Amino acid sequence: MKTRTEHRLFDGKLGFYEHDSTVCAGPMHFSVYLPPAALSGERVPAIYFLAGLTCTEETFMIKAGAQRCAAALGLALVACDTSPRATRLPHDDDHWDFGQAAGYYVDATQAPWSRAYHMHSYVTGELPALVEREFPIAVEARGICGHSMGGHGALVAALRHPGRYRSVSAFAPIAAPSRVPWGQKALSRYLGEDRAAWADWDTCELLRTRRFDGTLLVDQGTADKFLETELKPSLLAEACNVAGQPLQLRMHEGYDHSYFFIATFIEDHLRHHARALGR
Amino acid sequence: MKTRTEHRLFDGKLGFYEHDSTVCAGPMHFSVYLPPAALSGERVPAIYFLAGLTCTEETFMIKAGAQRCAAALGLALVACDTSPRATRLPHDDDHWDFGQAAGYYVDATQAPWSRAYHMHSYVTGELPALVEREFPIAVEARGICGHSMGGHGALVAALRHPGRYRSVSAFAPIAAPSRVPWGQKALSRYLGEDRAAWADWDTCELLRTRRFDGTLLVDQGTADKFLETELKPSLLAEACNVAGQPLQLRMHEGYDHSYFFIATFIEDHLRHHARALGR
Repeated sequence: MKTRTEHRLFDGKLGFYEHDSTVCAGPMHFSVYLPPAALSGERVPAIYFLAGLTCTEETFMIKAGAQRCAAALGLALVACDTSPRATRLPHDDDHWDFGQAAGYYVDATQAPWSRAYHMHSYVTGELPALVEREFPIAVEARGICGHSMGGHGALVAALRHPGRYRSVSAFAPIAAPSRVPWGQKALSRYLGEDRAAWADWDTCELLRTRRFDGTLLVDQGTADKFLETELKPSLLAEACNVAGQPLQLRMHEGYDHSYFFIATFIEDHLRHHARALGR
Repeated sequence: MKTRTEHRLFDGKLGFYEHDSTVCAGPMHFSVYLPPAALSGERVPAIYFLAGLTCTEETFMIKAGAQRCAAALGLALVACDTSPRATRLPHDDDHWDFGQAAGYYVDATQAPWSRAYHMHSYVTGELPALVEREFPIAVEARGICGHSMGGHGALVAALRHPGRYRSVSAFAPIAAPSRVPWGQKALSRYLGEDRAAWADWDTCELLRTRRFDGTLLVDQGTADKFLETELKPSLLAEACNVAGQPLQLRMHEGYDHSYFFIATFIEDHLRHHARALGR
């Protein structure tokens, strides 16, 4: 693991790091915010944040204003990049919504993407193992949160790995990727045209057979330009209702898809995670 | 005035705008955050934020996390670009610390810069007049704040215009530009080689004959890589001491020159301004 830069922030420490990833077949960037409690020697729980299309490991740390509240609650924050970067594949940057910066937090099975695009295994396995080894971060006390593509990633991670996360939340998640253009484009290319293979990567489909042991907190802005075409929170509400999955879906009048929306409500999310994590 | 984008944020509204500037000889971008009180019809005081080298009207609004506190205190925030952009001059982007994105908040007297580079008149005159006309922003109840080059700009603006600002603060300001490399490079090119002309644009020099009616709040990180060469807060402390100018200079152990430093202490600054503005 290599330190790229570190900054003092709300009496804690924000660092940007690089390491050689096995599952993503090359160097990956990630970032960690440690609250003051961790710098004083305590092992603290971490919240993993999965960003959306076009973002990097920097976006959440720079734009969300989350560290003030994380410092107060004694939570670490961990963010990663949104796709593998080192292994370049043909046409991997032809689209802003597929390939580079659009890994969709799945484990690709289709060539050539299966050579490196294993973001699900990365964020649920390799990255936690790394940060729990290298930083004063508690083992087995994780929360996960994400935005848009990353909201999809967070919900799928929590549903697929019972016990691995104590809490989950999302901002404007793509909760039914099998039924919207963004998801259909990505899943067909990463996983193939057989839609049966998509069900394991679609929150609404997963809820047919799985439940998360806790309440899903989901925030959605009503002025989000992707609301009707890509996000469709009513499908998530319906799937949770059928499954008996507790869901707190909050619609926010006039808020859009930007990090200004996230910044406004991130404190509520961190407090939701802190309660589950006993902070 | 043209609206570029608007976003809901902490129940207020953040907008990015463009207008035709007379003093900067062409279109300029700026941004305004209105707190909920302003959206309810109240005229609220504004804090002008002047950013540093390489920044734009977006930087502070995206990175500083200031809107949460501004919303609570009922303060508007106004930010502008860091140089004229529309009138392009030969070699104006050869340097990251001079020309484009480096207007130094002076009124240039030397060709060719004097054709457009009048950022001081812009931020102290044309911009306040515009926003006080177009937005529910109180007249004659202004605060001004800035970072690095913008900290210099804020202190100079407050000292040169008695009564125009009720409060002033700065993060890591270039408070003695006549005596440091950044300042010498910029002032010699914008104002000419005659150093007598520089004194009106140097906080420490201005303090020989002027005082601000209030306390200057200045924060500085001890791990700022520009501390010893460009910022030299001891020169500001000495000038204030000689002048009898109240100064609250706070040195922060381990903090650097980034917006992570600003984000940590912006609430203290906004509360400092709010007290002077009666909020």
